[in-house]
Amino acid sequence: MTDQSITPRIERFVPADNAAVSFTGGFWESWTETIRKVTVPTQHQRMDEEGFLEVLNFHLPPAPLARPIQPSGLSMQHFFDSDFGKWIEAASYTLKAHPNPELEAKIDDIVDRLAEGQMTDGYLNSWFIRREPKKRWTNLRDLHEMYSMGHLLEGAVAYFLASGKRKFLNVMIRAVDHIIDTFGTEPGKLRGYDAHEEIELALIKLYRVTGEPAPSGARAILRRRAGPDASYYDEEARKRGQDPKDYVYKDYSYSQAHMPVREQDKVVGHAVRAMYLFSAMADLAVETSDLSLLAASNRLFDNLTGRQFYVTGGLGPSGTNEGFTREYDLPNATAYAETCAAVALAFWGHRMAQIDLDSRFTDQVELVLYNGALSGISRDGQQYFYENVLESHGDNRRWKWHYCPCCPTNIARLIASLGSYFYTTKPGELAVHLYGANQAELLLGDVPVSVEQQTAYPWDGDIALTVNPAKTAHFKLHLRIPGWSRSAEISVNGEILTPAVVKGYVTIERDWAPGDVVRIAFPMPVERLYANPQVSEDAGRVALKRGPVVYCLEEVDNGLPVQQLRLLAGTELEARFVSDLLGGAVVIEGPAEQASLLQWGEGLYRTSPPAFEPTRFRAIPYHLWANREAGAMAVWMREI
Amino acid sequence: MTDQSITPRIERFVPADNAAVSFTGGFWESWTETIRKVTVPTQHQRMDEEGFLEVLNFHLPPAPLARPIQPSGLSMQHFFDSDFGKWIEAASYTLKAHPNPELEAKIDDIVDRLAEGQMTDGYLNSWFIRREPKKRWTNLRDLHEMYSMGHLLEGAVAYFLASGKRKFLNVMIRAVDHIIDTFGTEPGKLRGYDAHEEIELALIKLYRVTGEPAPSGARAILRRRAGPDASYYDEEARKRGQDPKDYVYKDYSYSQAHMPVREQDKVVGHAVRAMYLFSAMADLAVETSDLSLLAASNRLFDNLTGRQFYVTGGLGPSGTNEGFTREYDLPNATAYAETCAAVALAFWGHRMAQIDLDSRFTDQVELVLYNGALSGISRDGQQYFYENVLESHGDNRRWKWHYCPCCPTNIARLIASLGSYFYTTKPGELAVHLYGANQAELLLGDVPVSVEQQTAYPWDGDIALTVNPAKTAHFKLHLRIPGWSRSAEISVNGEILTPAVVKGYVTIERDWAPGDVVRIAFPMPVERLYANPQVSEDAGRVALKRGPVVYCLEEVDNGLPVQQLRLLAGTELEARFVSDLLGGAVVIEGPAEQASLLQWGEGLYRTSPPAFEPTRFRAIPYHLWANREAGAMAVWMREI
Repeated sequence: MTDQSITPRIERFVPADNAAVSFTGGFWESWTETIRKVTVPTQHQRMDEEGFLEVLNFHLPPAPLARPIQPSGLSMQHFFDSDFGKWIEAASYTLKAHPNPELEAKIDDIVDRLAEGQMTDGYLNSWFIRREPKKRWTNLRDLHEMYSMGHLLEGAVAYFLASGKRKFLNVMIRAVDHIIDTFGTEPGKLRGYDAHEEIELALIKLYRVTGEPAPSGARAILRRRAGPDASYYDEEARKRGQDPKDYVYKDYSYSQAHMPVREQDKVVGHAVRAMYLFSAMADLAVETSDLSLLAASNRLFDNLTGRQFYVTGGLGPSGTNEGFTREYDLPNATAYAETCAAVALAFWGHRMAQIDLDSRFTDQVELVLYNGALSGISRDGQQYFYENVLESHGDNRRWKWHYCPCCPTNIARLIASLGSYFYTTKPGELAVHLYGANQAELLLGDVPVSVEQQTAYPWDGDIALTVNPAKTAHFKLHLRIPGWSRSAEISVNGEILTPAVVKGYVTIERDWAPGDVVRIAFPMPVERLYANPQVSEDAGRVALKRGPVVYCLEEVDNGLPVQQLRLLAGTELEARFVSDLLGGAVVIEGPAEQASLLQWGEGLYRTSPPAFEPTRFRAIPYHLWANREAGAMAVWMREI
Repeated sequence: MTDQSITPRIERFVPADNAAVSFTGGFWESWTETIRKVTVPTQHQRMDEEGFLEVLNFHLPPAPLARPIQPSGLSMQHFFDSDFGKWIEAASYTLKAHPNPELEAKIDDIVDRLAEGQMTDGYLNSWFIRREPKKRWTNLRDLHEMYSMGHLLEGAVAYFLASGKRKFLNVMIRAVDHIIDTFGTEPGKLRGYDAHEEIELALIKLYRVTGEPAPSGARAILRRRAGPDASYYDEEARKRGQDPKDYVYKDYSYSQAHMPVREQDKVVGHAVRAMYLFSAMADLAVETSDLSLLAASNRLFDNLTGRQFYVTGGLGPSGTNEGFTREYDLPNATAYAETCAAVALAFWGHRMAQIDLDSRFTDQVELVLYNGALSGISRDGQQYFYENVLESHGDNRRWKWHYCPCCPTNIARLIASLGSYFYTTKPGELAVHLYGANQAELLLGDVPVSVEQQTAYPWDGDIALTVNPAKTAHFKLHLRIPGWSRSAEISVNGEILTPAVVKGYVTIERDWAPGDVVRIAFPMPVERLYANPQVSEDAGRVALKRGPVVYCLEEVDNGLPVQQLRLLAGTELEARFVSDLLGGAVVIEGPAEQASLLQWGEGLYRTSPPAFEPTRFRAIPYHLWANREAGAMAVWMREI
């Protein structure tokens, strides 16, 4: 199929190969090493312990139909293939820079078993093949078969790029061919598309590696999604003997299928689905030069980040639909803010910034990386949050595994691929989006440029960026000036520059010689943040942020349920590095007042307010919460 | 069976016959007339429309087993008999003072059909007889058969007292005999008791009318409940082929069956179950002079009202277990605070005050009557709340009917029987618990005393209480001094008295002559209430109360989501009667500040707080909320 649009081609910035970016000490080295050494192996161990791998025993006869139980007592889901896919993807990102035959053997084992189980027509889904073969493709609305294949496909692409082995990729190309043969608008094909988006962006990844099946594969799916109705789900339900009106989510806005995507201007429904869809829209806008898709994606990004976004970068406030409700509805203690959704926002923002170098995208990528996504994994890399609340009374604890373990592998694949978020390039252009100690080997078109950042970021805002082209080369260096930065000082080889900040980036265009040093200083005062008055949950409250890091107060540091504290406007707050706090972190301390329980005594209500006593508080980075003893936590604190 | 305890007999105050108390103008006349003229007839109409009455067609063959759907699309429940019972009870309370042959015919129709359906061994439950006859008595943990029979029994007692007809009572006595034959500790009997308490207090009602089956019937059930374990539920589950560990509520504290009731000191589990249990414990303490039961009931009452009680009188904060969580956990926007639970608290407090004349019980009865229970029914008497939130963002709307319509008939039976909450008597003693315009014919032992209250209470705290014994008589008049009253002035025939306040009551003992007038003045300033600092949701917030009435702010009166307002400490607040507000009510008005959306502009977060502008607010009685257009509401308002 050919692309029939006639708009000018969008030239995107191409992300760095994540394996070409090595974190060299500091924050992200610690995290990426934790993911590689702890998270990836323990996730495989969990999948083994919990019987995921057993489902891949295709040589055994089909197992009973009833929903089985994992050994830990958690129920199994029909879309666990997606976890294989995401785990292989995360593992693959670690493999290229750190070859690991044992890990590769584990991946190969899964691949071999999937290959063995794949049906002769290319269909691949371990749940349905092993347990309910007659139900395949009977419920695109609820059962996530394309979603599962999409994640396997992403895993296959990543593993191919890491290992050079084509077996998994070939398996998934057969599966994609099967989807394309089965679904479409052509006569004889089924008109449906999966209600859980994912396959769309996976198809683009495949296309970018193989040139096949052309963006039209994903576009065809999106086009049906963009069409006038989602009546296929109704027809399908009736075929199953169900009344479409009994659909638990009532209307298809849950899956963003309530109106053509190009017309949508409010982010609705299931948050992860929305993020995957919009990521695919951004990719498709590039590959098909489709400006109307890009416009919709832009509009939706602004709606999300301007009206439906936690200060931590969390999104999707409600557990009821795992997603969005009304604008400005951002409850703290009941925040759903799924880890996967924040992770997927990074996917989307990263893609948008490839098209349009604008820090309104990358600011939010940085925000979720340091806060609302990273909070989803424990500091030791083996416990997780699904929901990322912004306030707790002590009953939110991380878990080792989950009945729907989608988040662990999602945060793993994001952090394992983090290098590609730091730098993007075009011929003659290098964009630096994130800061942190690293050494990177980049290509600007065919010009190799090596880059090194020396910095204690995010604990400190001073960065020494050494630019090392193989030989002197003329190119544009784009540096992101974070939205949180009020003043930045930039020098090249000691000479202070004052370049204009355009859409949150400064551009230094010059002949770059090996060893040129750009020094960037972002002062990092502690900032108090206040919320739009329409966010009623945050009225009268303050949040603390320093640089890209959002803070919270935990009971363990403050000796009492932190909701009994109130901060004092206008008082000086101190930031200092505490080396023995969970691997080292900057904490914020300052004066506060605590309610006197002694003075109140017994009883629930009375006609005079409680008395307060002076005290001091300590706040820690939000992403580090719930790593010590249980207790209350709050991001938004009362302030008087 | 004989009562084997040897403690001195507890002499209780006996509630007035509700039919002997006529509300004469004012607040409660309006509500009791609404219940009689609108609520009772429309509830019958709903039960008819929704197919409840159809289930009583016992002459038809058993209907399919699958859970059927009400015509409105709501699912049916297996415990709908309880709604017949509560509806008949409410209707009966209206019948005695207002004979209504048409209404009586409707009750008789239900009674005739229940009598026809009753099984030969006395078993009665329309769901199981019509739909799942083999499942009777197989699941006391979840299926509420005794609960349903208990409510039918309460209805039968009330209908017998109102109409003199014994048919329904006889049906239910046969059902009770069947329960006593089937369950017990004797050999050959089943050792179980219903996990949803109710039958216990219904049995006491039966006993008080018929002298049978002696309090031991209820006591026997309670004794098994008070026993060392709830293993019967486990055995029963195994018999059904279920693993007891799969119990959705995890442990039997959900049904207060986790430890002997006499040892319980924290109110836990399902709120309505708890209130029904504790009400029965109070009754049983009287009938069996069981001081240890009374001590437990006292302790639990204090735990509830001192640590787990909304300012409105709502209780049971969580929808997950329809009940209690941890102490001081009182979220506002997600408050469950089921109408039935507040209604049942009135039952409990009323019973405790019959034993111990202490306003710490009756204060809470008054609180729920004017607030957390009354909020469960619309001003027009035909729409309902199940959950009574204390804060809304506009999406809480009253419903006409519900898949679990337990609350409508519960609030109806409470208000329809309200007269009995106003007065209780003993020989030589008359206790006045509540204030409001009414005329009552009471008996102090065998001494008839007529009483009249002239007052605009609760809008005004001046009461003229005329005492009219048939002839001059010596007795004690106990008057409740509400806990909210800071100063009360009392005079008899113009002479000011200063009697001591003992446990919230003053006692005037004298020869009372016909026409003696007691004047009571309770000043009703607007009060600001503050919550214990351990209630984190209310920190920094204020609630407004005047007399017994708790207030809230609604968007419709204030022109904006009220969470954007903040009240100002120390400013003067004005109370005034607004005659055209939902039948007339006192509103509270005063200065406030509102956040400037214009000044804020777009965007979610920034480093300076929003600007505020002066404005004024209006608050209305909480029980009147959600009777006009949809919008935000808050009881607890920020205050600076």
